[in-house]
Amino acid sequence: MPVLSLPEAETLVAAALIRCRTAASNAAIVARALVRAEAEGLKSHGILRVPMYAAQAKVGKVDGFAVPEVTRPRPALLAIDAKYGFAYPAMYKAVDMLPGAAREFGIAAAGISRSHHVGVAGHPMEALANAGMMAMMFANAPAAMAPWGGTRATFGTDPVAFACPLPGRPPIVVDLSLSKVARGHILAAIQKGENIPEGWALDIDGKPTTDAKAALAGTMVPLGDAKGTALALMVELLAGGLTGANFATEASSFLDAEGPPPGTGQLIIAIDANSFANAMPRFAEMARIVEDQEGARLPGARRLKAHAKAKTEGIAISDALIAEIQAL
Amino acid sequence: MPVLSLPEAETLVAAALIRCRTAASNAAIVARALVRAEAEGLKSHGILRVPMYAAQAKVGKVDGFAVPEVTRPRPALLAIDAKYGFAYPAMYKAVDMLPGAAREFGIAAAGISRSHHVGVAGHPMEALANAGMMAMMFANAPAAMAPWGGTRATFGTDPVAFACPLPGRPPIVVDLSLSKVARGHILAAIQKGENIPEGWALDIDGKPTTDAKAALAGTMVPLGDAKGTALALMVELLAGGLTGANFATEASSFLDAEGPPPGTGQLIIAIDANSFANAMPRFAEMARIVEDQEGARLPGARRLKAHAKAKTEGIAISDALIAEIQAL
Repeated sequence: MPVLSLPEAETLVAAALIRCRTAASNAAIVARALVRAEAEGLKSHGILRVPMYAAQAKVGKVDGFAVPEVTRPRPALLAIDAKYGFAYPAMYKAVDMLPGAAREFGIAAAGISRSHHVGVAGHPMEALANAGMMAMMFANAPAAMAPWGGTRATFGTDPVAFACPLPGRPPIVVDLSLSKVARGHILAAIQKGENIPEGWALDIDGKPTTDAKAALAGTMVPLGDAKGTALALMVELLAGGLTGANFATEASSFLDAEGPPPGTGQLIIAIDANSFANAMPRFAEMARIVEDQEGARLPGARRLKAHAKAKTEGIAISDALIAEIQAL
Repeated sequence: MPVLSLPEAETLVAAALIRCRTAASNAAIVARALVRAEAEGLKSHGILRVPMYAAQAKVGKVDGFAVPEVTRPRPALLAIDAKYGFAYPAMYKAVDMLPGAAREFGIAAAGISRSHHVGVAGHPMEALANAGMMAMMFANAPAAMAPWGGTRATFGTDPVAFACPLPGRPPIVVDLSLSKVARGHILAAIQKGENIPEGWALDIDGKPTTDAKAALAGTMVPLGDAKGTALALMVELLAGGLTGANFATEASSFLDAEGPPPGTGQLIIAIDANSFANAMPRFAEMARIVEDQEGARLPGARRLKAHAKAKTEGIAISDALIAEIQAL
């Protein structure tokens, strides 16, 4: 497989998006996010998304030229209208503006509406933590999980992400979807022509399945059963209901160019980490408690390592995927 | 078993606490919370806690006379020092003061330090939702779960609670602990002399156990494996690190009268539900989407029903427990 440096990969991706009706500034932001996911080993949110994003930009399902608009409905709230563009530029606005508001008021939040796929939800949280914030994001996604006891896809696999600064080293980053596994793993299995393990997904009749295509048509199993669906309901109400975005049931797919824009939402909360107490040494203490245990590590540590390696060694991308992206 | 009306049960509990070095005003708040939990069928946070609370008040492990003190480190933040008293009076302060701050700034948070057992975390969230707030609470508890890959009890079973108002009916309330099951179920099993199902807990050597006492000495299995421990780390950092409270590893037991006060913490966030958009009809729409499905129900619905029944029919409490409480 050809190995590309991260800047080479970003250029490849950005150029393809620009050819597919996307503004250069937006294409650069999207390319950087996807390449970073790939570099961190998060392939399901990496380069494989490029053909899907490009196809949506081409037909206007995502508006590649959208410029997110920010209003301030209350002193500590930002309402960000993503205008059916990519989510990344809207999240950039939040990352840029939230620290100032959170320093002033102690806490601030951004509600993003008419948005799209968040990609790696941990990335914007990490950026906020680097600005001294405790940061949380709740994001919704097209319907993929049934409520507990129900059978219809009602909630997205809805990511929850969190980051906490640490003194003198990269932040702790928690980033998880509320399905037992992220739906991207189903996509990756389809791409590779592989089956999925039992327990990940149910088919369209609510029966367990190991067929990746049947899983994509069916529903994902929530993490922790009823508790996972309760958390997904919470995320739908915060990211969709509160912000004025679409619910999972109203959102079109992130994966194809059919139908209207997904119009999903994100709620991002930032709290000035030093506002209650001198918290930074305490965060370091918690990191130590975890890392002192043999076999345990902080969430996000593996990704950091993979990213550092990819920065020097580049990333391998299949000939087929490169050809597909170049042909866009 | 004797059946008591809810006011009778509250009087029984409050009187016992007052005899055990607790101010009447605090005893009334604690009694109301425990009896409500019992009435809702949440027995592990109900009347069975009275002898444990009373024993702690008697020796000063919890200060029954504490009056929580509120300061305002930033315009939208309340720092509440529970002064090693019960958590309930401190949470009452937050429920009382947060809606005003959240209406003014859009979002506000209360960090509670030097606190104690939260009981049913959904109750104060429900009260905030009744005031028009989207509300979230993160609370920590004595160490009971190992980090993923580790073996030492490091995080509490750390509840996450959430409530969302609905037009013309009680709020949606999500309330869950990040262990596969709440630790209170282990206590209840010990009281009844029963075994616990496999998969709930590990013994002190990290091996699966069905012995309730071995489980109490060991660690709880997290919900969703690694994801559950990542969420518990998040809660420790928010409820403990940020607020200036103790971490799980530093907190003494909520269950006995040994050692110093637990000194745990809570972070409560309130967002004015109508600040971004006209959200109430959207919340109602989401409730409809869930309730339209046969077999599905909103989280909290079963508790509401049990509470309504208990209000008219009273609650059955064993002779042994009544005698134990009267003898305090």
